[in-house]
Amino acid sequence: MERLPGFRDFYPEPLPQPDAWSANVRTHIFDTWRAVARRYGFQEYDGPPLESLELFTTKSGAEIVGQLYNFTDKGERPIALRPEMTPTLARMIAASERAYKKPIKWFALPQLFRYERQQKGRLREHFQFNADIFGENDVAADAELIALLIDTLRALGLTSDDFVIRLSSRNAWQDFFSTRCLETSKAYDFYQIIDKMEREDPAKSEALLQALGFSLAEVKHFIESAVPTAELQLILDNLKARGLAEFIRIDYNVIRGLAYYTGVVFEAFDCKGEFRAIAGGGRYNNLVKLLSGGKVDLAGLGFGMGDVVLTELLKARKLLPQFGVKLPAYCLVEDETLRPATLGLIQTLRDAGLGADYPLVATKPDKQFKRAQELNAEHVIRLDRQEDHSVVAKVKNLKTRTEVDLPLAEVAGHILSAKTTTQ
Amino acid sequence: MERLPGFRDFYPEPLPQPDAWSANVRTHIFDTWRAVARRYGFQEYDGPPLESLELFTTKSGAEIVGQLYNFTDKGERPIALRPEMTPTLARMIAASERAYKKPIKWFALPQLFRYERQQKGRLREHFQFNADIFGENDVAADAELIALLIDTLRALGLTSDDFVIRLSSRNAWQDFFSTRCLETSKAYDFYQIIDKMEREDPAKSEALLQALGFSLAEVKHFIESAVPTAELQLILDNLKARGLAEFIRIDYNVIRGLAYYTGVVFEAFDCKGEFRAIAGGGRYNNLVKLLSGGKVDLAGLGFGMGDVVLTELLKARKLLPQFGVKLPAYCLVEDETLRPATLGLIQTLRDAGLGADYPLVATKPDKQFKRAQELNAEHVIRLDRQEDHSVVAKVKNLKTRTEVDLPLAEVAGHILSAKTTTQ
Repeated sequence: MERLPGFRDFYPEPLPQPDAWSANVRTHIFDTWRAVARRYGFQEYDGPPLESLELFTTKSGAEIVGQLYNFTDKGERPIALRPEMTPTLARMIAASERAYKKPIKWFALPQLFRYERQQKGRLREHFQFNADIFGENDVAADAELIALLIDTLRALGLTSDDFVIRLSSRNAWQDFFSTRCLETSKAYDFYQIIDKMEREDPAKSEALLQALGFSLAEVKHFIESAVPTAELQLILDNLKARGLAEFIRIDYNVIRGLAYYTGVVFEAFDCKGEFRAIAGGGRYNNLVKLLSGGKVDLAGLGFGMGDVVLTELLKARKLLPQFGVKLPAYCLVEDETLRPATLGLIQTLRDAGLGADYPLVATKPDKQFKRAQELNAEHVIRLDRQEDHSVVAKVKNLKTRTEVDLPLAEVAGHILSAKTTTQ
Repeated sequence: MERLPGFRDFYPEPLPQPDAWSANVRTHIFDTWRAVARRYGFQEYDGPPLESLELFTTKSGAEIVGQLYNFTDKGERPIALRPEMTPTLARMIAASERAYKKPIKWFALPQLFRYERQQKGRLREHFQFNADIFGENDVAADAELIALLIDTLRALGLTSDDFVIRLSSRNAWQDFFSTRCLETSKAYDFYQIIDKMEREDPAKSEALLQALGFSLAEVKHFIESAVPTAELQLILDNLKARGLAEFIRIDYNVIRGLAYYTGVVFEAFDCKGEFRAIAGGGRYNNLVKLLSGGKVDLAGLGFGMGDVVLTELLKARKLLPQFGVKLPAYCLVEDETLRPATLGLIQTLRDAGLGADYPLVATKPDKQFKRAQELNAEHVIRLDRQEDHSVVAKVKNLKTRTEVDLPLAEVAGHILSAKTTTQ
């Protein structure tokens, strides 16, 4: 039986096929996401992968249904697998924000789903690092969030040679629009044209812009000037004070298509332009109000970073570590009468927090040793009965090739101290 | 907007309501599951939460559909949210087992889903720790798996006063059955009666057993004798050698309802009998063959441990730690002209792997200090401009109440060494 198209299995190393997805890579990325978020004082939350369909259509309009995994459950509820985390987050914040001191800094690592019928080979799920801040209007919060984004990518080994944050602002575009056009109802159409312009035929963009009363030349000129607005300058100064200025560039090409952004917006891209956006986000000050039916009004901002483009980029830049899991101890059983004593020793090692493995059944000594090497064992341990019937452990360090005889009670301590000195 | 019935939001501490689910508790449980599994040499894998419906009906029969979240996707495929991990695992193993040395020891932490229409207040999803071994027929593998189960519960603080593993065997029941009844087609019905007997009216069990040619008395006598079979005795001896005998009890009441178990079966229960089973598992030597259409024949065994009963038990036994996250450093900004320098210091601290936070915007000093206390800060740091215009950091340890003046470049090292000495 086959897995569904667009879904992934995550295998442990060694991978069964070169293009298989690695569970170890996923763990590496998740661990890094979590570590950096915590360092920034963000706390983890999670919500259900299934939500009522209305939660997503309220935020994004009915047209989103075409991209959703949606269905009717056995209780006749229209529901959907979450395509993004922000609606769930806004729902949770609206229900419980009073319990938390502001600013609220939260993160999550949800799996997200979308069903696009036409695109073959495109994944239908991915994992996304979501980080959000609530309850702070000042752009200092935007700078803090962007710093987290930069440091997350740095923690994975990427440098300013590898990625750039393209910083822009809905407010800047709104100023541009409103000084030239008084029909505010056209603003959303205008933003959509800007959003698609980089990938669109210039003639088509020109025609669309002219229909709204703009020229492509004036739009291009605004983008190319790249003059930071006052709020963007504050963010640049803030990031400069952190030593992170080299990662950021004002780029008004970025506007983020979604309707709900209200202020600063940004995207992370690889410098060579080989991949889709690594991450994107911005401010959405009206969303909690919208999704709480007006009950809670709380400024918000956040970003999302998916695992698929990120993994491709880390692979291309050779930044994925080798995942030969080191096993602190492999216990050989050459004399089956010593198996019970060996099991006791293994328990002692594991109780001490040490990884330990052994042959489950009677096995030829050379095969046992081979298995120890396959498992990347740091020590092999063999019990040996002395002439006085006492049992000692012969502990061999496979790296230094040294062997010591130890009483069983001292083996765990010996291996723990070997770990400490080599790390 | 509300979340769907039977689903959970996971909130960071402090919880907004006393009965809210804690993301910190979930992290604590997940971290423990992972740590113990790795110590035992198990490697993590994962599969898709959605699979073709056929994968589940092949394993469990068409009757399982009544308990599934199943639907037809936009490509007209009958699909379901996974109600258990074993079918996905068997599919992955069947596809790729040749790439892995035996025994294969894998674990996963999937979220599982079931839709039972009638049961109000019952959760429709939970997380489950799944650990499985493939490619070893010897009961030494069963013992290794049960030891992992015991140590996982021990690692969460539970003792032999709190839980017991009830060990049983399909083989023992098969011997019992086949010495008394030659119609093997009735064996499955017989197992179903045994499986339900503990919760069933004895008169009903008696009637059902008599219909198959058994008496309740002989069944009860077999259960009460609790004589271990040869294979169960090997497991008992193996666990005794590890010092884990006190956690285990032969109990033939356990038979595990599912059709696919083939050998040793077991369940973990709380000693007071207040909760449903904490975990359950056993051997399923034919499952990979079944799900691979006969292509791959590989012995398998595994267990599952859900997060819901476990969390209830840990709460009841007061074994959940306090989740006041300690923040190594909170940086005060009392002089706004020093904010850029403070941001630089915060970056240095975070680069050193230290959690650090600060007021995003100008804030009254007493409010800042209160916030530091709310965040459980270990140090508060305040920059101070000296008469010669140089800047020093005043680093106060909130526990020892001592304050030192340090050059900015030495603050991270100072806090790191304070962490090392207090841990």
